[in-house]
Amino acid sequence: MSRSIDLAVIPGDGIGQEVVAQGLKVLNAVLPQDVKLETKEYDLGAQRWHRTGDTLPDAELEALRNHDAILLGAIGDPSVPSGVLERGLLLKLRFAFDHFINLRPSKLFPNTATPLAGRPDIDFVVVREGTEGPYTGNGGSLRTGTPAEVATEVSLNTAYGVERVVRDAFERAAARPRKKLTLVHKNNVLVYAGHLWKNTFDRVAAEYPQVSTDYLHVDAATIFFVTQPERFDVIVTDNLFGDILTDLAAAVTGGIGLAASGNINPTGAFPSMFEPVHGSAPDIAGQGKADPTATILSVALLLRHLGYDTEATRIEDAVSADLAERDGAATRTTDEIGDALAVRV
Amino acid sequence: MSRSIDLAVIPGDGIGQEVVAQGLKVLNAVLPQDVKLETKEYDLGAQRWHRTGDTLPDAELEALRNHDAILLGAIGDPSVPSGVLERGLLLKLRFAFDHFINLRPSKLFPNTATPLAGRPDIDFVVVREGTEGPYTGNGGSLRTGTPAEVATEVSLNTAYGVERVVRDAFERAAARPRKKLTLVHKNNVLVYAGHLWKNTFDRVAAEYPQVSTDYLHVDAATIFFVTQPERFDVIVTDNLFGDILTDLAAAVTGGIGLAASGNINPTGAFPSMFEPVHGSAPDIAGQGKADPTATILSVALLLRHLGYDTEATRIEDAVSADLAERDGAATRTTDEIGDALAVRV
Ligand SMILES: CC(C)[C@H](C(=O)O)[C@@H](O)C(=O)O
Ligand SMILES: CC(C)[C@H](C(=O)O)[C@@H](O)C(=O)O
Repeated sequence: MSRSIDLAVIPGDGIGQEVVAQGLKVLNAVLPQDVKLETKEYDLGAQRWHRTGDTLPDAELEALRNHDAILLGAIGDPSVPSGVLERGLLLKLRFAFDHFINLRPSKLFPNTATPLAGRPDIDFVVVREGTEGPYTGNGGSLRTGTPAEVATEVSLNTAYGVERVVRDAFERAAARPRKKLTLVHKNNVLVYAGHLWKNTFDRVAAEYPQVSTDYLHVDAATIFFVTQPERFDVIVTDNLFGDILTDLAAAVTGGIGLAASGNINPTGAFPSMFEPVHGSAPDIAGQGKADPTATILSVALLLRHLGYDTEATRIEDAVSADLAERDGAATRTTDEIGDALAVRV
Repeated sequence: MSRSIDLAVIPGDGIGQEVVAQGLKVLNAVLPQDVKLETKEYDLGAQRWHRTGDTLPDAELEALRNHDAILLGAIGDPSVPSGVLERGLLLKLRFAFDHFINLRPSKLFPNTATPLAGRPDIDFVVVREGTEGPYTGNGGSLRTGTPAEVATEVSLNTAYGVERVVRDAFERAAARPRKKLTLVHKNNVLVYAGHLWKNTFDRVAAEYPQVSTDYLHVDAATIFFVTQPERFDVIVTDNLFGDILTDLAAAVTGGIGLAASGNINPTGAFPSMFEPVHGSAPDIAGQGKADPTATILSVALLLRHLGYDTEATRIEDAVSADLAERDGAATRTTDEIGDALAVRV
């Protein structure tokens, strides 16, 4: 295990700065003395774009490549046309660094307010494909702005891309106590992509007889997310379905303030990137109201990815314990939550 | 108003037969004496396909075209390869009859079991586009079944198609007390289709100053469906997002057993088709366990479409009253529910 971590930090927009500060605070607190942590901050996001017109210049992409990992806060601001930063920065990073595993655990922690009656026992992880599907930017518009406009979006799916994420999901399912993997797609309508996913899934399944498998259409999956979320263990799905399902998963497990994610390249060829699932929430930025827990849990995913399992578990346990003791009525500031967790780890 | 209804009935698969029988029972009960109801049943679905290989032959498509409306139960069976009946029958009907409005009301009726804590006040309608998006069947697979396979799905969106559904949604919103319309898309990633939708929406909005408008990404929308569903009045969205959102909407409003839908061509050029949102549920078929309420509410949509507003409202009121009096513990058979509603209307 490397005893140094060279971390790139992209605070980004809105509440990004605040939550990342708490993530780093907890990271510093949890790391053993002998691990040298170096961080380098990158000024990317809405402000930079307004100032210079840059989203992610090649030189910075090149520089980012040399870090061990990236911690990202949030990207996006209403003052920037929709899509500019998402495509030009966030998705550019995910694609350039071939983050084909978009890992999103969902767990209903004690004492958190789920909108679901009866507080079901929720503990699953979504393995979302991160480099294909309708996210490739493959589309166009003809006669734009006229009554004869045609706009297309192409979902691209390759055996190469589907197989690697499906294999990763089987590995993760095999390593969990329940050993259950659900494929979510819409193969009754999206028959070409759907069949590629389903056939790949069935073929790889034969190599994992210990993993029980299941298939759900994406529409049906949303039903089970609210009526029977305890049925899920590991879910593997396409980029867009994964986007939708993980926001819903965050909502039923106490909100987007707790949902962590990792954009992972398991081969190590590129740095992986860890970020909360939530957005930049410009309406509450700078007020100390943002919950940094999602970022702090993303730091745990980052540590696990880099081989610091004990430290990752310490953060996750601290979050559990902290939430268990949290007084439902008292709301804490961003800083207070970070402090509490830094002390606990 | 025409005082006769010439109705095509496609019971379809699984529980389709059972629920359609109750729909027709209530339809017969609610119609005034002087309205002549003629029904013709079409044998389409899994059994027919097994027997003859047909999904929807041209002659039957032609015959269906001449009815005033179509009542459909459910299509689909595990014994048929995924996609065959969906694309070859259900979607073929929606596309051939240019059902560009897929209307799906969501209402939390009294006494129904929502998975949401606190029983929020839910009463919205999703206007789902029905003839474009990723549902056009425009895609393909290259080197199928090999490690070099590439599979695509193309979402097709036209100004013509988007504008007509957006206009319809504004009309519906303007006619409701709250007069609120939310566009749901994913225009930060699907920038071409997303911008066509957003620009069209904004342009038409200028003609409806009395309607307040809102935009949500589809992932964020799923969060609000479970945390704040009362915020929605009318939602307009793409074919695939509408598919996903309406199953979730059904789940939070007491389940798919109550969710009705209309595949509507408002121009009258083709017969509109009414069907429950639920599938064929082969696991409970033939056992009298299926809830026919979704089909009965679809009959109400059918009546309203044909101009029988009073009768439509009578059915909707009967369902409300019936549910309000329903004993939470007692489960009733498909037939009993149909009888109870037929008596009430
Ligand atoms: C901001 C957006 C591009 C992004 C996505 O769609 O992947 C976000 O919703 C997420 O889930 O990380
Ligand atoms: C069966 C399937 C093709 C259909 C759809 O995706 O539209 C169904 O899910 C629906 O919502 O009516």
